[in-house]
Amino acid sequence: MSLLVVGTMAYDSVKTPFGHRDRALGGSATYFSLCASRFTDVNLVAVIGEDFDPKDLALLSDRGVNIEGVERQAGKSFHWKGEYGFDLNEAKTLDTQLNVLATFDPKLPESYTKSDYVFLANIDPRLQQKVLDQVTAPKLVACDTMNFWIDSAPDALKKTFERVDVVIINEGEARMLAKTPNLVKAAREIQSIGPKTVIVKRGEYGSLLFHGADVFSGPAYPLEEVFDPTGAGDTFAGGFMGHIARQNPERLTGELLRQAIVMGGVMASFTVERFSVERLASLEAAEIADRFRAMKRLTHFDDLTGAPTK
Amino acid sequence: MSLLVVGTMAYDSVKTPFGHRDRALGGSATYFSLCASRFTDVNLVAVIGEDFDPKDLALLSDRGVNIEGVERQAGKSFHWKGEYGFDLNEAKTLDTQLNVLATFDPKLPESYTKSDYVFLANIDPRLQQKVLDQVTAPKLVACDTMNFWIDSAPDALKKTFERVDVVIINEGEARMLAKTPNLVKAAREIQSIGPKTVIVKRGEYGSLLFHGADVFSGPAYPLEEVFDPTGAGDTFAGGFMGHIARQNPERLTGELLRQAIVMGGVMASFTVERFSVERLASLEAAEIADRFRAMKRLTHFDDLTGAPTK
Repeated sequence: MSLLVVGTMAYDSVKTPFGHRDRALGGSATYFSLCASRFTDVNLVAVIGEDFDPKDLALLSDRGVNIEGVERQAGKSFHWKGEYGFDLNEAKTLDTQLNVLATFDPKLPESYTKSDYVFLANIDPRLQQKVLDQVTAPKLVACDTMNFWIDSAPDALKKTFERVDVVIINEGEARMLAKTPNLVKAAREIQSIGPKTVIVKRGEYGSLLFHGADVFSGPAYPLEEVFDPTGAGDTFAGGFMGHIARQNPERLTGELLRQAIVMGGVMASFTVERFSVERLASLEAAEIADRFRAMKRLTHFDDLTGAPTK
Repeated sequence: MSLLVVGTMAYDSVKTPFGHRDRALGGSATYFSLCASRFTDVNLVAVIGEDFDPKDLALLSDRGVNIEGVERQAGKSFHWKGEYGFDLNEAKTLDTQLNVLATFDPKLPESYTKSDYVFLANIDPRLQQKVLDQVTAPKLVACDTMNFWIDSAPDALKKTFERVDVVIINEGEARMLAKTPNLVKAAREIQSIGPKTVIVKRGEYGSLLFHGADVFSGPAYPLEEVFDPTGAGDTFAGGFMGHIARQNPERLTGELLRQAIVMGGVMASFTVERFSVERLASLEAAEIADRFRAMKRLTHFDDLTGAPTK
């Protein structure tokens, strides 16, 4: 099934305690597409500048990503510069240059308008809605967002939320949006806006899925070496949406959502093992199935024998 | 089977955004005993002052806790005063009065020396060893510790670790002890000192079990109302050790450890629902089995169908 993604394609300059990369391939739509294309057909919508390396575009199209919707504009590509401390939990943004992203006005190629699944990565919620306006009859729509839009465009963001099935959001941003430190309450608050499903990303602690009244704790794979957390969240979304699109269920069940969230965690765990998209680009299909099995082993426990009676 | 615990019995003055309690019953050995006594016979070793309320002692003995090893000394009981902010993740200590704890010299009643299981709660590692010296042939010994001892008595702490089977430690303290932000590496480092099993407590994010080369991610139950996190870690240890002592296996398996860790999480989730030991004291046995089943539902997912082939 076809999976449309709109988001950023960027060059990132990233420094972590384990090394640095200057102007390495990045951006939410890049990570998402490279990941989701393992599972299904991906229709990519983004804007790039004149400086965007044809080799980086080829990396995507060679994986089968449809890049017809990638618009090249005069000017430079979006550039992000950031640094992570030893705990790798939070990036310190040193510089953001929007460049061609500042005037991005997503227009979908005709062939994209019939996409079955849609992921609206973290961009201006008004642009997210513009994309959604152009898709005829999507089966499932998910979106991400960030603190900047929660602060600066709360009404537009609410309108996006009203039109999506799944909100995927960081822990800190869920708390900020719902104005409560309690994640269960925060997720219920977001659900009350419209989306039946809320996924809260908690970095190295995994994720929480709220689907109707059901709650699922999605595992994170404990890694001995984490080089660069950049793109983990977008890769997570790519594994999640990719798995669902590949299964293309008649009706979305809680069980498939659980499996898709574990797949999101599996894929994210690869991304952070190397800088930029290095690991994601070189990944073998068998490694994915292996790590999914490891996730099962990581979280499995037997039913209770001998409950306390006192 | 008999389970010995040495730790503190205290009065805590705690303030959270949801209320406060002045001089409420607390202390690591109190939480541990109240919890573990649901599962097995508990031998309690601690020191209390003249001010310790007989009703609080009766609360323990009524639950079947053996309080023969609770020594009453001239002076006041250990007192801790702390405050939690809105995120409830970290306590700010406002005042610590050691009182009778300052001269605590644990002596075991004869009947305690044959205890099968031992938990050394967070006290001076030299006292932890003194207790261990007096137990004849324990089947399994676990210990906890804190940043204070990591800083002030690293050699004594190392000696304790060399003599225990299981180290139960907070995330931040594991990182501090092993001087690495990576938890997998930190656990491996602690294992290299001696204990085959390391359990890293991560508060609302659950726990990680390292048992030989095996890793298990223990869930935390997502609660909509958390009133007071005090005692969660000691309750966790009580559920963990209590479950193992009740099962009393011929050989400790990874599967039983996993089940015991889930039970630890179950019991801790009750403690934080009310102030002090209020919830733990009023808990029904059926609620424990119910929440264990909920933990299974929280973490269960199906095996992978349709792995990616691309």
